[in-house]
Amino acid sequence: MNKSLKELALLVGGKIKGDEHIIIKGVAKVEDVKEGEITFAVSGKFLSLAEKSKASAVIIPQEVENFSKPVIQTANPRLAFARVLEIFAPLAPEFKGIHPSAIISEGVKIGRGATIGPLCIIQEGAKIGDNAYISGFSYLGRDVSVGERTFLHPRVTVLDKTSIGKKVIIHSGAIIGSDGFGFVKTEDSSYYKIPQIGRVVIEDAVEIGANVTIDRATTGETRIGRGTKIDNLVHIAHNVTVGKNVAIVALVGISGSSCVGDGAVLAGQVGISDHVSIGANSIVGAKSGITKDIPANSFVWGIPARDHLVQKKITAVVHRLPELLKRVQKLEKLIKEE
Amino acid sequence: MNKSLKELALLVGGKIKGDEHIIIKGVAKVEDVKEGEITFAVSGKFLSLAEKSKASAVIIPQEVENFSKPVIQTANPRLAFARVLEIFAPLAPEFKGIHPSAIISEGVKIGRGATIGPLCIIQEGAKIGDNAYISGFSYLGRDVSVGERTFLHPRVTVLDKTSIGKKVIIHSGAIIGSDGFGFVKTEDSSYYKIPQIGRVVIEDAVEIGANVTIDRATTGETRIGRGTKIDNLVHIAHNVTVGKNVAIVALVGISGSSCVGDGAVLAGQVGISDHVSIGANSIVGAKSGITKDIPANSFVWGIPARDHLVQKKITAVVHRLPELLKRVQKLEKLIKEE
Amino acid sequence: MNKSLKELALLVGGKIKGDEHIIIKGVAKVEDVKEGEITFAVSGKFLSLAEKSKASAVIIPQEVENFSKPVIQTANPRLAFARVLEIFAPLAPEFKGIHPSAIISEGVKIGRGATIGPLCIIQEGAKIGDNAYISGFSYLGRDVSVGERTFLHPRVTVLDKTSIGKKVIIHSGAIIGSDGFGFVKTEDSSYYKIPQIGRVVIEDAVEIGANVTIDRATTGETRIGRGTKIDNLVHIAHNVTVGKNVAIVALVGISGSSCVGDGAVLAGQVGISDHVSIGANSIVGAKSGITKDIPANSFVWGIPARDHLVQKKITAVVHRLPELLKRVQKLEKLIKEE
Repeated sequence: MNKSLKELALLVGGKIKGDEHIIIKGVAKVEDVKEGEITFAVSGKFLSLAEKSKASAVIIPQEVENFSKPVIQTANPRLAFARVLEIFAPLAPEFKGIHPSAIISEGVKIGRGATIGPLCIIQEGAKIGDNAYISGFSYLGRDVSVGERTFLHPRVTVLDKTSIGKKVIIHSGAIIGSDGFGFVKTEDSSYYKIPQIGRVVIEDAVEIGANVTIDRATTGETRIGRGTKIDNLVHIAHNVTVGKNVAIVALVGISGSSCVGDGAVLAGQVGISDHVSIGANSIVGAKSGITKDIPANSFVWGIPARDHLVQKKITAVVHRLPELLKRVQKLEKLIKEE
Repeated sequence: MNKSLKELALLVGGKIKGDEHIIIKGVAKVEDVKEGEITFAVSGKFLSLAEKSKASAVIIPQEVENFSKPVIQTANPRLAFARVLEIFAPLAPEFKGIHPSAIISEGVKIGRGATIGPLCIIQEGAKIGDNAYISGFSYLGRDVSVGERTFLHPRVTVLDKTSIGKKVIIHSGAIIGSDGFGFVKTEDSSYYKIPQIGRVVIEDAVEIGANVTIDRATTGETRIGRGTKIDNLVHIAHNVTVGKNVAIVALVGISGSSCVGDGAVLAGQVGISDHVSIGANSIVGAKSGITKDIPANSFVWGIPARDHLVQKKITAVVHRLPELLKRVQKLEKLIKEE
Repeated sequence: MNKSLKELALLVGGKIKGDEHIIIKGVAKVEDVKEGEITFAVSGKFLSLAEKSKASAVIIPQEVENFSKPVIQTANPRLAFARVLEIFAPLAPEFKGIHPSAIISEGVKIGRGATIGPLCIIQEGAKIGDNAYISGFSYLGRDVSVGERTFLHPRVTVLDKTSIGKKVIIHSGAIIGSDGFGFVKTEDSSYYKIPQIGRVVIEDAVEIGANVTIDRATTGETRIGRGTKIDNLVHIAHNVTVGKNVAIVALVGISGSSCVGDGAVLAGQVGISDHVSIGANSIVGAKSGITKDIPANSFVWGIPARDHLVQKKITAVVHRLPELLKRVQKLEKLIKEE
């Protein structure tokens, strides 16, 4: 598919400098870009790499001057890049319609334009919205609902009663609605299972990564808020509430009944104890361990997590600890000698 | 399904205060409870929340007095709550019998009342006990045995020779019996695979979470002891032995040939090195790293893990490190001035 | 299958001491070995255990003298042990050929001797090499290529455009080619998805563990180098490059665009930030957090990671921090008294 630079600028809402008639055949990040393709760059190092690259055109910020290649200038070059990627790689599913090998229970409601791929299992009471796409090997349990235009990649497991909103994307291997980890210790030191009869609610525009697990609530709901994005291999326990537009990076674990506020960012391998609240728009650095409530707009890091500036100072002193010990030993010697 | 408070008290073995004739229509945790439902509460804050809630009745400890709602009093309210949950949400599988789409090799033995869901693959030599439930998309490899009343949720993978006991529950996406991570470094710096010919043994009443991986032994067995409960996304390596009634929280990794004693608790994201032994009834705090043997009844925490009281003291001083450095600098100045 | 000690010595290239005619019926690690079987031992404790065991013969290093059982002596006993394991446990797949229940799109190319197990889904444009083995429940997306003699265990998911080399082994539940975690933050604080149109390339002789996730590149490639071995539940993000003969232990997370050099070892639960480079032959200790480039041949440990000897010294002082605080308090008191 070929587009002129002019067409692309119209589609992404940017301003051209240079030849608007050049033909763009593809799009790539600056490391991968070839002649005939467009890339993007935001700041110093990458602007310079983009100029040296074989790219035929570059998407750059409005304020950049004196760029040596044809450009599209825009307030948010990353966003424009995302849109150009969509143009050159439209979602083109491998199959349309209801595959005859899918096993669909009676009474399942399937919306107009919805697809159910090969070898799916759809249980009683499931509802699938218009233009939803359920790829092969997916499992929808009883009374699951899937909203309009939601896309399940191959091999997603959605267990009984889960509600999934519109325009949600779920990647392969994700398990939504497994039992929460709830047991009572009995007198003979064994564990007695607490039945988990609640459900999971995934709001609109959420994205859930590969092999993620989200447990159903004991009673009530585990809820993932609108627009939240979850990376691979994340664990979200029963009765957790994740707010809107939260970003959760890979291998994070969130324990039972904790809350994550709107707009928060949890970096990779973070762990959050049970019944803890992370304030809105907080940032939790990678590998941190959170055991207490965090106020809104915090930026914390460490095990246990502290304000990131405090943690930075502490880390600097930790690095000097062997020296500090020697200094104390020297002082002790001096005092003794007096 | 409706039950009188009297019926429920009989079923869970508790004593009523208040109107025994009231009708209970459901059960929920205190956050979710509605009129007509029963909840439970154990200690101060939750007792108070339960009194203020819309609950029509509450399960509380024997010793609590002056509670403003009808109650069932019992020695273990959590256990009674679990039993009431069972009453209101009996396990009601979506399908009974052998689904015609399951691919079952010749000679597989299937017990009375056992279910094999849609699109399962059951290989030669597998044995499935009476009333076992194998949900859709499950895979049982050659010579796998599954005990009576064991329940596999959809999409469980049990590889060759694995032995699974009675009343085991395995959640979706779990992989039991994958190869251990064993290689020999050769002269040309490449890795040569050590064939993994052992197996996995899961004893009775174990529960295994979603997307857990348990590797087969190199030779011999990887063994999970009776009554042990494993949360989601846990990794258990080859030749590990986990004792009875152990609790392992999400995202824990246990390296090869390590042993975890009976009754131990491993909190979330703990890592255990290879050939390490965790003593019986020990508690390992979240995110800890264990590289040495831990005696029985320990409570350790940290990276590296230390006794939790020692670690607590250390953490308090770490928090004051920038201040400590300044105090040392001040002392140095004072000494110099003298 | 029985072999004489002489036959085994010939097959693994070792020298016999003791009766070369004894018959070996099996092979096991020293903990599991029974009469009639062979085991191996390399160093002190294990040599002694092997002598006391019921093993009928032992594979030991060339330099060991005065061993009380028949032995095969070789420069690399571990490697010889791996080869003996192969002899006694040859890979014997449960099925050969193309299973009629597999759903194979038109135009898929299947090499000579290749197997496609039950209930697989193979999409358009996929190519499967000679003698490749695709176990049941596997999914190969569009334009996926799988090299000769590659072995996919049950339930592997390989998404569109992924290229897999020869003699690769992929364990159950692995997801290869899921979308990278890439979003642009927009003015209304929501995240806009960056389409991920690149691919994953897995070179020859790689092994990938159970429930691993490897994301496709935004544009270009995520690449796993020849001979690299990846344990269970590892996450590898978009545009990562892993070199040759790298070992990555369970629950490691590698963020976007990072590079891991040839021969590096990443121990369990390590986390690596984005755009970081780990030098060739470096070792990263368990649970470490890497946020900066690491030169070749480093051995680092900790959060943040430091040279392991420095970290060891720091850890020793950390352990003495409560004592150090007291010493500083004492000094302050002494100074004050003067």
